[in-house]
Order: sequence, then C-alpha cells, then structure tokens
Amino acid sequence: MTNGLDALRPLIGQTTANSPSPLGRWLNGTLQEVGENGIKIAYVVRAEMTNPVGILHGGMVATLLDDIMGMTIMVKYSADLSGYFFSTVNLHVDYLASAREGATVIASSNITKAGNKIMNAEGWLHDSGGKLLAHSTSNLLKVEIRA
Amino acid sequence: MTNGLDALRPLIGQTTANSPSPLGRWLNGTLQEVGENGIKIAYVVRAEMTNPVGILHGGMVATLLDDIMGMTIMVKYSADLSGYFFSTVNLHVDYLASAREGATVIASSNITKAGNKIMNAEGWLHDSGGKLLAHSTSNLLKVEIRA
Amino acid sequence: MTNGLDALRPLIGQTTANSPSPLGRWLNGTLQEVGENGIKIAYVVRAEMTNPVGILHGGMVATLLDDIMGMTIMVKYSADLSGYFFSTVNLHVDYLASAREGATVIASSNITKAGNKIMNAEGWLHDSGGKLLAHSTSNLLKVEIRA
Amino acid sequence: MTNGLDALRPLIGQTTANSPSPLGRWLNGTLQEVGENGIKIAYVVRAEMTNPVGILHGGMVATLLDDIMGMTIMVKYSADLSGYFFSTVNLHVDYLASAREGATVIASSNITKAGNKIMNAEGWLHDSGGKLLAHSTSNLLKVEIRA
Repeated sequence: MTNGLDALRPLIGQTTANSPSPLGRWLNGTLQEVGENGIKIAYVVRAEMTNPVGILHGGMVATLLDDIMGMTIMVKYSADLSGYFFSTVNLHVDYLASAREGATVIASSNITKAGNKIMNAEGWLHDSGGKLLAHSTSNLLKVEIRA
Repeated sequence: MTNGLDALRPLIGQTTANSPSPLGRWLNGTLQEVGENGIKIAYVVRAEMTNPVGILHGGMVATLLDDIMGMTIMVKYSADLSGYFFSTVNLHVDYLASAREGATVIASSNITKAGNKIMNAEGWLHDSGGKLLAHSTSNLLKVEIRA
Repeated sequence: MTNGLDALRPLIGQTTANSPSPLGRWLNGTLQEVGENGIKIAYVVRAEMTNPVGILHGGMVATLLDDIMGMTIMVKYSADLSGYFFSTVNLHVDYLASAREGATVIASSNITKAGNKIMNAEGWLHDSGGKLLAHSTSNLLKVEIRA
Repeated sequence: MTNGLDALRPLIGQTTANSPSPLGRWLNGTLQEVGENGIKIAYVVRAEMTNPVGILHGGMVATLLDDIMGMTIMVKYSADLSGYFFSTVNLHVDYLASAREGATVIASSNITKAGNKIMNAEGWLHDSGGKLLAHSTSNLLKVEIRA
C-alpha cells in the first residue's frame, strides 16, 4: 500500500502558499518533516492570529491542530482511497502554554488508529524551544463519495 | 452585581471591525443579540475561511466557538473581576453539518457554570436556516493578575 | 417511523434490575421519564461508586452519562434499524459539582443529531435539588451487522 | 522534591483490594509499574463491567482511565502539596477497540503538564496483546483545602 504522505516529501521546506486549501494558504505554514504516520509544519504567529493581549488565539491553536490532523489523514490515504473523503466528527484541544505574536510554533501529527470507518489522530503544538503549548485529538469519518 | 454583557447592548448590529482582538477583527462578525448569560454573533463564510472543497474549515468552526465562549465570559465578568483574566483550559467541538463559502453562520453562547476558579461555557453554530452545524464546550480558568 | 423509546414507557418507575446490561443492573437506576428524544434515570450513590473522600467518582459520573446516552440511541433506533448497532467513538464530560454517598442523582439525555453514520447525543447529571453536576457529549457510529 | 509515586513502588504486584477508594477496591486492579510520571495497572474484565453484548462497557473504560489519571496526579503530588486536593475539570475518551469479558486490560498514565493550577494527564488502555483500546486526556484543578 502506498503511503500518500511520501508525496509530501518533495515539499519539505516550502510554504503552504500554493495549498489547495484557502485557509491553509492564509495560515502560511512551512512543511518541516514527513514521517510514516505524521508530519510537522512551522507557522509564524501573525498579529491577525492573536487575541486582545497579543497571544496566539485559542481558536487559532485549534485551527493549526485541526488542519494538520485532517491533512495528515487526507494525504496519507488519498492514493489508496479515491472515492472517499474524511469528515471531522469531533475535535478536542487541551491548552498548556501560550505563544506571543512573532513567535514560531510547530504543529505535529500522528495517526493513532486507522479504522474501517473512523480515523483517530493526535496533534501537538510546540514553541521553537520545544515547550508543549497544546495537545489535541480528533476523530474523522471515512465517507464514500457517490458517483 | 453588574452583568458586564449589558455593556455590549449598544453594539448590537455593529461589526467586530473595532474589536480589541486582532483575530476578532479578521473574523468580522456582527453582534446580533445579548442575553443574561450569552450572546449571538453572525459571520459570513469568506473564501479564506474554507477548506479545499469550499466548506467552512473545521478549525474556523472551532475558532468562532472558542471566540464567542471566551468573549462571553470575559465581558460578563470583567466589570466585577478587574484583576482577573480567563485562560482557556480545554475546548471540545462536535461537528454536525457543514456550511459553504458565502453562507451566513450564527454563533451563540451560554455560560453553564461560573465557579470560583473554573467557568464552563457552551457554544453553538447554526446556519441562517436554523440548522445546527456544531456544538462546543469549554472550561476557562480564572487567573489573578499580580500587581 | 416508530420511536423505539416508546417501548420504555411501561417501564417507568421500575429499576434496571432486569436490564440486559450487566453493568446496567449493577448501576441499578430507576427509569423516571421517557421523551421523544431522551430519557431520565435516577440512581442512588452507593459506597462502591465513591472515591476516597466519599464523593461520586468521576469515572462513575462518566459511566452514568455514557450509559444513558448510548441506551437512548440504541433503544430509539433499534426497531427501525435491526441489522445495526452503535459503537461509541468518543465521550466528553465536564464536571461541575459533586454528589455524596447516599445522594440521589438524575441522569438525562437528548439526541442532538441522528446522522446517516454518526449519532450525537448529550447527557446531564443533576442532583435531586436540580443542581447540574456534569454535562457530556458523545458520538456513536452506526455499524452494520454482517450476516 | 519528593516524587510521591515512589511510595507506590512497594505495592507493585499487589491488588487495589486495600485502596482507600471504594470504587478502586471494586475495580480490583493489580499495580504493574511505577515510573517517574505515570503508572500501569492491570484489570480483569468482570461480567458486571460489561454491556449487553459482553464487551467492557464504555463507561467502565472511562472509569479505568479517569481513575488512573487522577490517582497518578494525587499520589505524585500529595507529599509536597499537603493542604491541596485535585478536582477533575473534564475528561475526554476516544474509543479505538473493544475487550471482552474475562480479558485482561492494562491502564497506563502520564502527566503531560503540572501547572500552578491545572494538571493535564493522559491515559491509555491496552489489551494484553498490546492493542490500544482507548486514549484519554483530563484536566484537574489544584484546590487549596482551607483549615
């Protein structure tokens, strides 16, 4: 079975400026690593991602984590599962520390279980010093696309 | 005790274009209702909020819900609790249906419990036809600001 | 379409002593109400349900909520969906207040969305004075039983 | 600083039959490992822990995970934090696979972050063959006991 994540390897070091995802382009991350079961993307915290006290907004943290978990599953299984897409069932985020405007934050992902119907993934957000800022889990439903 | 949410009433019908929150300005919602324990804000789904298939990104859904829950707690208790701020502990989102680019979506909030230390809130996202798109809960920690 | 919950109406006032669920029998609740989309069950907090400080254990709170949400979905849709069962994807519980040994607690449920594949439900636990002790959400996957 | 978990080492191999927790006694696990930041406990799935189809009830899964995460935090910090207890704020469980009556299941824990006020932990439930059955996260609030 092909690991669809391999298709991302040539893109390491590039930004998401050409992502098919409009929100992905706005987030403008840089792909850092591609593994067997997860990826790593770095983002710079821009002003428009912050809350009134200049800190990366909790919703943006959720966005970076939701995006990387969904992307990892979508890309890993797209080659072998044409005719399917994945719909997010739920997202849980625990907030552990904060990041300020201008900081670089690194999102990473791992697929915990690839079931027949439900895919379970985890995501982490670290700062550039390696401190864990947030942790997430999500379930996605594999949905058949009817012709 | 003053209900800080009363301070929002004069802003009904206005956009968040002047919000102290940079992300709030970017989201550009319109305040629709203010209640005793929650508020309602309408947003238009812009292209940059969508995923590759033109649907409101799950991370953006989480953002709208996280933002309205946090704002509700912050505003309601700010008058009586100067010297405190609220830090999000966790966020849970269940995704129930989707919204397309151009659609209007309405976020609403309710404070479930205001404890001594932990505030628990719920959020809902509906489309303009009243269909429930997502439901969220969140816990926030009341943090004392040391002089 | 038949509402399978109607089959529970004759059991109002009875305990779960004859439940097909071994854990349900151990929990030994009393069915109080049956609605269109949810039910209500009362339980007495026994010593073996408590933690070291004599309070209803958080795991037991999760159990009462998981059980009532799953039962509600299972019973409501069993009549029309023979050939299916429901598998819990995830459970989220927010803890708001506590109950002591000997107290009566009342679990209630509501099905938020019955999708083609995913069922989303909410649960609440109150004490006998009407105070909200805990709130939960859960997603269940409809699984076809192959002959 | 003392690591309170060290106090558990002499109990490895023993059951929770003498636990100060009534529910802990009923669960009747066997302590298997004690680490710097987590522990491991084995349980046998008894009939009264199962659902109508003879599978470990989802509520019991939540109970095993909630119990081990709470116990880990409580024991680790009890020595240095007399005058404090820990109150569970929320619990999230993802269900990945099931276990039958008679099976041995192993719960394990790790403290992700020990903050000033909020402790964040993870829990896992595996079967005896090493398959991951469930994954959980929880936040606990450190509460000062007033004299």
